[in-house]
Amino acid sequence: MDAVPPPSLPDPFALVSDQLRPLDELLSDLVGSEHPVLTRVAQQFFDLSGKRFRSTLVLLAAMAANGGRPGNAQQQQLAEITEMIHAASLLHDDVIDMTDTRRGAKSAHRIYGNKVAVLAGDFLLARASVLLSRLNDTRVVELQATAIEEMVQGEVMQLKASPQELLQMDHYVNKTYRKTAALMSLACQASAKLGGCEPKVEAALQAYGRHLGIAYQVVDDLLDFTGPSDTLGTTLGLPALSHLKQGLATAPTLFAADEFPEVGAMVQRRFGEEGDVAAVSRLVAASDGLPRTRELATNHAAQAAAALGVLPPSAARDALLRLCFDVLNRKA
Amino acid sequence: MDAVPPPSLPDPFALVSDQLRPLDELLSDLVGSEHPVLTRVAQQFFDLSGKRFRSTLVLLAAMAANGGRPGNAQQQQLAEITEMIHAASLLHDDVIDMTDTRRGAKSAHRIYGNKVAVLAGDFLLARASVLLSRLNDTRVVELQATAIEEMVQGEVMQLKASPQELLQMDHYVNKTYRKTAALMSLACQASAKLGGCEPKVEAALQAYGRHLGIAYQVVDDLLDFTGPSDTLGTTLGLPALSHLKQGLATAPTLFAADEFPEVGAMVQRRFGEEGDVAAVSRLVAASDGLPRTRELATNHAAQAAAALGVLPPSAARDALLRLCFDVLNRKA
Repeated sequence: MDAVPPPSLPDPFALVSDQLRPLDELLSDLVGSEHPVLTRVAQQFFDLSGKRFRSTLVLLAAMAANGGRPGNAQQQQLAEITEMIHAASLLHDDVIDMTDTRRGAKSAHRIYGNKVAVLAGDFLLARASVLLSRLNDTRVVELQATAIEEMVQGEVMQLKASPQELLQMDHYVNKTYRKTAALMSLACQASAKLGGCEPKVEAALQAYGRHLGIAYQVVDDLLDFTGPSDTLGTTLGLPALSHLKQGLATAPTLFAADEFPEVGAMVQRRFGEEGDVAAVSRLVAASDGLPRTRELATNHAAQAAAALGVLPPSAARDALLRLCFDVLNRKA
Repeated sequence: MDAVPPPSLPDPFALVSDQLRPLDELLSDLVGSEHPVLTRVAQQFFDLSGKRFRSTLVLLAAMAANGGRPGNAQQQQLAEITEMIHAASLLHDDVIDMTDTRRGAKSAHRIYGNKVAVLAGDFLLARASVLLSRLNDTRVVELQATAIEEMVQGEVMQLKASPQELLQMDHYVNKTYRKTAALMSLACQASAKLGGCEPKVEAALQAYGRHLGIAYQVVDDLLDFTGPSDTLGTTLGLPALSHLKQGLATAPTLFAADEFPEVGAMVQRRFGEEGDVAAVSRLVAASDGLPRTRELATNHAAQAAAALGVLPPSAARDALLRLCFDVLNRKA
């Protein structure tokens, strides 16, 4: 049975919902009415960023670092900036990967073309820079810019891995940190910095974000093999196998390669031969790859939870703890 | 006869060459050895950015604002940052416009793919943000980020102009400011700010950069019709007509539309019918479009020169003045 959040832990999204500005207000601040095309693209991507997970995370980190009291205006601004950087990375990822769909919707570059997707991403990054600079804290600008660099370097690691690196679990985890977890980790750290926390609190929130982000992505990689399911575990669709189809080995495949050497050979040729994707999918299912991947995610979630230990007790700390279980519980 | 710089004005590039760090040192600082792909792309684009025009401009502005003494370390850093932002915009423009060549070389996205071009541009923007934040001046970060926003908005203006806007000279000049001149203008202003100049000097350098940048781009648009030539004016190749082929009307076409109403109709359909490009090219040549375009560029160059009046006399001020003539004198 999967980990289930104890009902006594508060809902992370409910706890900060009154600190998240309404989306239309945020968008109108962001792009004004001058550029309806950019507004539409931004709107679409804020919609797709769903629950504004990263904003929620930054606001909870601010509260937890502050003994449970709501974050200050700077921290609330940081929450919006972090979501903007995430949206920009989605826009640029779509151009990069030639993805046809994102969460079922047509991806922006198919609707508007590469042109507008690259421009809208650049626009969001530039606007994020302006807003960051107004926070008047150089260290915070540096943390957020470092997060963007990590995301880029993670993409490059993925693109340019040598055949040997493709088989290394360390390489996979490092890439996963950079692509997904770095923004969460460094935004949590920046949030603590803006609250004037002591260094050990800042370090704890950075570690929390890092491990939570890795767990989040590892579960994503697992779902790519198992397919979406409802809360009772009933399968709702076919596994996407999108990473295999892109030539990418993730945790389930790497664990399977421990048991089946032929998987390793297929990883190193990026599943480039006829039948490779189906064969790997079958061998992963026959191996301990899926349970070992779940264990990997669970261990990172546990490390995230452990990092919270230095924070004073508060509803916000409990909500951060609950996220450690919620990420393991994702069904789609 | 074209304007020729009086020989007594100093060579702008020679004046600051000892303040420009060697390219290999700069690149190794920038990307390290971890990501050879990014290094190669960055190298290519620094090469293509030629004489490092924007770095030179920022360094000269620093000196001119400072009575001729070399700029401080912050201003030298700003010069490099400005070139990085320019290189990032070239990388993203190449993806955006599906350009096949840039200055004769294969553009990066043809060699490395959209993936690496978008990533390398993002990497340069993120690194520029980090370096900017270390300058510890929020207003300077804001100026540079605003420049990036202007560049994006200029691209969007170009992409989404209404048929009516396509015919407006104001729209063309405004778009030209945003796409090309904003970075020069705001970087000159930021350079003045980092030198602790009085507001009138800052305003003068901002105006200088704006008019110089517009003149620079208007000459570029002129060369698109006349083709490259040697210094004696001998034609070296066919006109590229690249803007017409992309559906874009620039100054020569807009002036020609004043004389030949059929040009206006073609502008509004973005030269989409068979034979439009050839017809416009012929009508532009038959009109006063080219001399009027040269006059437009010359007037902006003169306004740039006029803005220098408030600066104290120095070799750097004279070098900035010479750039006003050099841009008019460009042959390719």
